[in-house]
Amino acid sequence: MKHLLDMTSLETEEIHEILQRAEQFRTGKVIKSPEMKFVANLFFEPSTRTRFSFEVAERRLGYEVMNFETSSSSLQKGESLYDTIKTLEAIGANAVVIRHQDERYFEPLLNETSLSIINAGDGCGHHPTQSLLDLFTIQQEFNKFKGLEVVIAGDIRHSRVARSNASVLKRLGAHVTFSGPSEWQDERMSEFPYITMDEAVERADVLMLLRIQNERHSTKCNASSSYLESYGLTIEREKRMRANSIIMHPAPVNRGVEIDTTLVECERSRIFKQMENGVYVRMACLNLLLQNAQEGMVV
Amino acid sequence: MKHLLDMTSLETEEIHEILQRAEQFRTGKVIKSPEMKFVANLFFEPSTRTRFSFEVAERRLGYEVMNFETSSSSLQKGESLYDTIKTLEAIGANAVVIRHQDERYFEPLLNETSLSIINAGDGCGHHPTQSLLDLFTIQQEFNKFKGLEVVIAGDIRHSRVARSNASVLKRLGAHVTFSGPSEWQDERMSEFPYITMDEAVERADVLMLLRIQNERHSTKCNASSSYLESYGLTIEREKRMRANSIIMHPAPVNRGVEIDTTLVECERSRIFKQMENGVYVRMACLNLLLQNAQEGMVV
Amino acid sequence: MKHLLDMTSLETEEIHEILQRAEQFRTGKVIKSPEMKFVANLFFEPSTRTRFSFEVAERRLGYEVMNFETSSSSLQKGESLYDTIKTLEAIGANAVVIRHQDERYFEPLLNETSLSIINAGDGCGHHPTQSLLDLFTIQQEFNKFKGLEVVIAGDIRHSRVARSNASVLKRLGAHVTFSGPSEWQDERMSEFPYITMDEAVERADVLMLLRIQNERHSTKCNASSSYLESYGLTIEREKRMRANSIIMHPAPVNRGVEIDTTLVECERSRIFKQMENGVYVRMACLNLLLQNAQEGMVV
Repeated sequence: MKHLLDMTSLETEEIHEILQRAEQFRTGKVIKSPEMKFVANLFFEPSTRTRFSFEVAERRLGYEVMNFETSSSSLQKGESLYDTIKTLEAIGANAVVIRHQDERYFEPLLNETSLSIINAGDGCGHHPTQSLLDLFTIQQEFNKFKGLEVVIAGDIRHSRVARSNASVLKRLGAHVTFSGPSEWQDERMSEFPYITMDEAVERADVLMLLRIQNERHSTKCNASSSYLESYGLTIEREKRMRANSIIMHPAPVNRGVEIDTTLVECERSRIFKQMENGVYVRMACLNLLLQNAQEGMVV
Repeated sequence: MKHLLDMTSLETEEIHEILQRAEQFRTGKVIKSPEMKFVANLFFEPSTRTRFSFEVAERRLGYEVMNFETSSSSLQKGESLYDTIKTLEAIGANAVVIRHQDERYFEPLLNETSLSIINAGDGCGHHPTQSLLDLFTIQQEFNKFKGLEVVIAGDIRHSRVARSNASVLKRLGAHVTFSGPSEWQDERMSEFPYITMDEAVERADVLMLLRIQNERHSTKCNASSSYLESYGLTIEREKRMRANSIIMHPAPVNRGVEIDTTLVECERSRIFKQMENGVYVRMACLNLLLQNAQEGMVV
Repeated sequence: MKHLLDMTSLETEEIHEILQRAEQFRTGKVIKSPEMKFVANLFFEPSTRTRFSFEVAERRLGYEVMNFETSSSSLQKGESLYDTIKTLEAIGANAVVIRHQDERYFEPLLNETSLSIINAGDGCGHHPTQSLLDLFTIQQEFNKFKGLEVVIAGDIRHSRVARSNASVLKRLGAHVTFSGPSEWQDERMSEFPYITMDEAVERADVLMLLRIQNERHSTKCNASSSYLESYGLTIEREKRMRANSIIMHPAPVNRGVEIDTTLVECERSRIFKQMENGVYVRMACLNLLLQNAQEGMVV
């Protein structure tokens, strides 16, 4: 592995390798880079948890972190992403974590740089470390994927999480169903059937709520309490969930929209646990990529 | 102590403990955190000296610093301060330094997080590390508080320094008087009498000038040379100050308004000394909070 | 040397000293500051390569880096550069790297601070580390300056590179010529003759293209393909360049304007090599300045 771009490109074996390394970091394994290595974080869209989660992961591994504020960079002077990446390479960066508004922004870069690229979100495309931390959280809970009932609910169409997760969970043996308003259904994923939220809560082992991506909608949607009643997780619905089933959400949560605010930290919720797990999973990915880069291996 | 929020909550003994540790750092004591600890700086209002002073203090103690640029964070997506703090906690932060425009923004957070919160300014409320560095600077000069004549002069009403300092200095035995335009007097602090600037310079051991907080006024005030003549420290007034008396100002100074520009670095001025002391005092606070947090002590 | 402000103030011997140290860093020399030293980066204009190049250099030398985002600082409250510098000094910075829109912004600071100031660009004035990395790149290629034909081509008037480089290259024995549109000629540099781009490609050992400084023009210039045809490096012109001659550009490149986009990474191009060299040269400068500052030497 040289780059981490989407879940589709990851072999099942590589996924298990990453989850296993993440578990080692969770239980206290310490690895510090013996050489000075530089990781640059380029976020072209606002982010808190992903950006800082990567930063914590990078520092725990002993890397030097360069935070690239896009508002004060030469991108202001019209510089292309390609030239920015070649510049980072020239000044000695080893890897770059990128969030960008364009889907598959990384295509033109792949064969042109010695840097490892870690995709931290490409438009409505993919967000592989989010998928991996979701897998890690599910595995931690159930110790398997095979046969699990997973319902992914909400703004399927604009979510980079929904698509990545549905495919990989199916590949790992889970049974995946979608739920959500018809206008946000994604015709590219027609293999997954839709059910109502009332059905979802009774079926799911894992109820994976999605954030309404207001920032990616051309018109503001109806992100209100009527959404909660029709499509979200109300207090009443949570009561009908199966024993031992869990609630997930990639956050930030629109409280009172996707989920009743009192449920965000309820016993079933793994929302903050997901964030904690994100650090371990990102450590695993960075460690794997930069170690391989060092050994000269290329995907 | 788990949090540092305002001066009122600090026991006199704790204040002396902080000043004593600050003095140890000033005279060269080196303490480096043996474990990796993360401190996040969240500044919702512009700042130079406070932000960088904290950053230098954090690094001198060997902490990992995470600078949270509020303009590029998920607060842009409408995330609440509560959820931001819980996120920082989940990804492994140990303490958070916050400056925020709302008074007592920290109230809803206190019993909800394992993080130590250090208030670096809440609206027109408090700014405890500024008070502590002011105390440290006074103690360095006079080696006592009891019986000292302290005049706090200027924009009393909008200052988070005035209120904190007046109360704590009185508690420590100093005699505190206010000076300033009647429209900026603060009825919540009616126990402290007002005197003119002409009286102030003749009485004060410590003349503590305040910054005119233009950014917190609903209407722009008369921050001009006529202010200097009526309420500020002119060259002429400085000449009438008592031997060994000192001038303080939390900075940034509006030169030619609160004080004649030539006096900013005059012999009596401790303005840049205050900034230097700020680093030692913040090291003392961070060291105390993070050490206690480690021992599981809670206020 | 206490400060690094422009090339004019550097003795020829000091230039050779810097280039020699840069070569040592390029070939793997490791120097880590035994004490904790703080370097602040103050960029008042957008920058990618210069800012990050300095940051990598600072970290490779083991310094603590403080990145000062001017948009969130007290400069927003009207604080002067002088007071900002004095603040950085008070809180313990050892050196400050500044890019600023005003020519010779540093004049009022020089005798007022114990900090080392490194000029990373002053308006249309100077950018000494860019000149030094250009010299380093030329020396690496030709192992001499004497007798080399150097053509500096493009927006001479608004470039801080053109003036610095022309003078210092002449001092070191090179033969320097200019090329570019008549409206961007610089009457302050009348000693250097102008030639056409067609002549330039046939004469130059070093063809140094300049970025069109759109951001410094009061009216937008004709930065288009017609510029490329008249004044830029086309594919056709590159073919007429002398054997072993090289192409340089300080970047970011306006692709298709100053140079045909396919030539940016051609065999003759040293554009990304210049960026790599920038790190070594900046390490050399910082190492020299901070070491001397330590020994109490002052220019």
